[in-house]
Amino acid sequence: MFPTQPVVPRIAERRVAPNANVTLFRRCVAEGLGSAFLLAAIVGSGIMAQRLSGGNVAIALLANTLATAGVLVCLIAALGPISGAHFNPAVSLADALGGGLRWRELPAYVGSQLAGAVVGVATADSMFGLAPFSLATRVRSGPGQWLGEFVAAFGLMIVIWGCVRFRSRLLPFAVGAYIGAAYWFTSSTSFANPAVTMARSLSDTFTGIRPADVAPFVAAQLAGAVGATGLFLWLLPHDGETGAA
Amino acid sequence: MFPTQPVVPRIAERRVAPNANVTLFRRCVAEGLGSAFLLAAIVGSGIMAQRLSGGNVAIALLANTLATAGVLVCLIAALGPISGAHFNPAVSLADALGGGLRWRELPAYVGSQLAGAVVGVATADSMFGLAPFSLATRVRSGPGQWLGEFVAAFGLMIVIWGCVRFRSRLLPFAVGAYIGAAYWFTSSTSFANPAVTMARSLSDTFTGIRPADVAPFVAAQLAGAVGATGLFLWLLPHDGETGAA
Amino acid sequence: MFPTQPVVPRIAERRVAPNANVTLFRRCVAEGLGSAFLLAAIVGSGIMAQRLSGGNVAIALLANTLATAGVLVCLIAALGPISGAHFNPAVSLADALGGGLRWRELPAYVGSQLAGAVVGVATADSMFGLAPFSLATRVRSGPGQWLGEFVAAFGLMIVIWGCVRFRSRLLPFAVGAYIGAAYWFTSSTSFANPAVTMARSLSDTFTGIRPADVAPFVAAQLAGAVGATGLFLWLLPHDGETGAA
Amino acid sequence: MFPTQPVVPRIAERRVAPNANVTLFRRCVAEGLGSAFLLAAIVGSGIMAQRLSGGNVAIALLANTLATAGVLVCLIAALGPISGAHFNPAVSLADALGGGLRWRELPAYVGSQLAGAVVGVATADSMFGLAPFSLATRVRSGPGQWLGEFVAAFGLMIVIWGCVRFRSRLLPFAVGAYIGAAYWFTSSTSFANPAVTMARSLSDTFTGIRPADVAPFVAAQLAGAVGATGLFLWLLPHDGETGAA
Repeated sequence: MFPTQPVVPRIAERRVAPNANVTLFRRCVAEGLGSAFLLAAIVGSGIMAQRLSGGNVAIALLANTLATAGVLVCLIAALGPISGAHFNPAVSLADALGGGLRWRELPAYVGSQLAGAVVGVATADSMFGLAPFSLATRVRSGPGQWLGEFVAAFGLMIVIWGCVRFRSRLLPFAVGAYIGAAYWFTSSTSFANPAVTMARSLSDTFTGIRPADVAPFVAAQLAGAVGATGLFLWLLPHDGETGAA
Repeated sequence: MFPTQPVVPRIAERRVAPNANVTLFRRCVAEGLGSAFLLAAIVGSGIMAQRLSGGNVAIALLANTLATAGVLVCLIAALGPISGAHFNPAVSLADALGGGLRWRELPAYVGSQLAGAVVGVATADSMFGLAPFSLATRVRSGPGQWLGEFVAAFGLMIVIWGCVRFRSRLLPFAVGAYIGAAYWFTSSTSFANPAVTMARSLSDTFTGIRPADVAPFVAAQLAGAVGATGLFLWLLPHDGETGAA
Repeated sequence: MFPTQPVVPRIAERRVAPNANVTLFRRCVAEGLGSAFLLAAIVGSGIMAQRLSGGNVAIALLANTLATAGVLVCLIAALGPISGAHFNPAVSLADALGGGLRWRELPAYVGSQLAGAVVGVATADSMFGLAPFSLATRVRSGPGQWLGEFVAAFGLMIVIWGCVRFRSRLLPFAVGAYIGAAYWFTSSTSFANPAVTMARSLSDTFTGIRPADVAPFVAAQLAGAVGATGLFLWLLPHDGETGAA
Repeated sequence: MFPTQPVVPRIAERRVAPNANVTLFRRCVAEGLGSAFLLAAIVGSGIMAQRLSGGNVAIALLANTLATAGVLVCLIAALGPISGAHFNPAVSLADALGGGLRWRELPAYVGSQLAGAVVGVATADSMFGLAPFSLATRVRSGPGQWLGEFVAAFGLMIVIWGCVRFRSRLLPFAVGAYIGAAYWFTSSTSFANPAVTMARSLSDTFTGIRPADVAPFVAAQLAGAVGATGLFLWLLPHDGETGAA
């Protein structure tokens, strides 16, 4: 099902910044940096929103949504030309399946994302005067939420593959808009990212997830990302059709 | 009034992705996929918003608006180059009237949109632990709301024709911004889409519409889309004037 | 101070759509159409927001802001290449001062904007089951609000001149973002548009303005727009410096 | 660590508008004008938001966030090609460190930013019927908030350097999205700008900061901006890799 030769562009904008010229180490620093800011934004804005919203969860989630979408837009715009701005092991896996990221680079990408995500959580908690880490107690479980994570990751990869293929310049906005929407339309509030899921288990705040609930979320995310990649490669198999971005 | 030869571009970005090379079947898969995500976003975010907003309908509609606008931006960006990203029978009809979509392709487009929309509703309801389908009981009727749907679809087609003609790259943002605004400025909260209208009658939740109220909404939407197409073709009849996007 | 020969581009995107080829009549239809949708969005979303927000004025104004910004983005994107998408007599006056719009075209532009704006108010009121027109009773007056209107129109023209000169593709977003911000940072909620001001005196709803308060608002708006135009022409006098958009 | 020869582009879009051709005096007028509107928007929307939000601080901050992000988008779009649209002494310092802004121009930039910011505060207060200046009494202090300011400025410069290098057209949106997010994810609500910090000490309103708390905020901001600049120059040292924007 998945090719061994690259048939679609890497999730990175090679025309803009030929990241093949940037060493793997530096690309991993960019992945870690972006993942740290992503998690700091998710967890930090969750804390701020809960403190200020006077108990109205919709208002808190609205603020959390806008902060997450905003930080995705600017991080993907700024770091995309360097590392591809995955910040997400499921996206890196899909990129490898699509023939973009080299398989031997995948562990370094995933490791950097996880390390950055953990640093981001500690930074957020520290900014708000909390201990850097605390195990989350919020229950997020059940078939509805697992379906939610599958849908969230499936849609994310459809958006990414569609934009990477034809309109890479729109990717920062498309991903920000998608995740912002998915915070509300999936029952699980769209984690859609294994690194985000694991790191959010380390902060017992608004955006936390109980460590015991992490594994099924991650499984659903990987299934969604792989499924969407397979569908998209069937939908548009010929690289030769792609136009200039 | 309407031409038999194409005088305006198809609602699709031919320069970016010559979708004539993509088989009708694959384009219909893209239409169905996009329609499913659109409905999942509308219905799902409506459920989430109502549950979290503590009875403040303005806050619930605000969240529902942002989710809908966000998903339109990313779906049109990702799937527009493949199928044109209509996700809306009124838009496909208008495209056929304008000489873009072939008339013999219209039924397949509309069928895919309807099928995708129904799947999207079932997905949303399932994610939130509800039965996949339930007939909506919310009354949406009266001359004010019918005028609202006419205005909503009229404006949508003006925005689409204007952008397709001169600035197809802005289309995802323009449609998202338009529908987001129209949720608030039309008395009917701007369904503006027959597939969305029919599918929303199948979920008895925040965004539902009583099945008995569907027909006049659809009639007003089609009238608005056809009227705007006629006006626009009069306003800018010459294809030769169009510049690069 | 103001030139008799064009020194800056017209407020229209000539490279994209050479609107000199579109008859004045059709450009005026576009101005009227856009002004009608602009007012329908402002007044209609104000009614909806007030009805749903349960008395929280901040939430109502937030919804009104997003609807107004959204409709500006999509209308300017769609109609800008046809007429310049002024929808605002102060902008048309500034364009004439800058050497763009011909002085003999100014009355037709302004007349179309006013007529469209009035139609838009009647449409909004009708959609929500109200009489088409009713004189507004909301008092908006005092030096603070007049200063607010001067600042609002001054900033609007700075944004328009800056973007028209160097980045006309960003104009729809820049104007939407500016007006959205100015709804909150000016004490008058940034009418910034004589046609909007006059038309809003015809609906006794959330966004209304008492007819007696219209004149000083309009005077402040014109002063702001003219002042900003003078400043900008001094700041960047040489047309030859402009690059491709 | 920092070069004496320019290795990265100035924070300005030289291809679009070669600001080297604009006199320093006019560029400083643009910096002052932009800084004035930035502060008017921050302080003014804070006053409006607090007055209307009925005591819900989350709603007030949400309005304040959208106004700030919106005004950044339009000001950077409009004035970026003229002066670089720094509006921020920390950004000007980073630009000088990166070899862009000439060191002898730095004092004029910073002076203009400070003067404009002070004028903006007085304008905002006057629009809302308050005395032009009043010393703020709001306490903003402590290690958590200082860390917040370091993070806020560090992230801002990463976003700016990344976008300036590869995607200068996205800069207005990226900066607006970043600051909008950072208002929520940093414990200090992301001042991230010494001129903003000083000027906000002059208005005893929603966005004020006690004069005694200004110095550590400014120190943390400068440290963050310098640190991010050093990291980015290490991450992507070679200017030759940059592509067209």
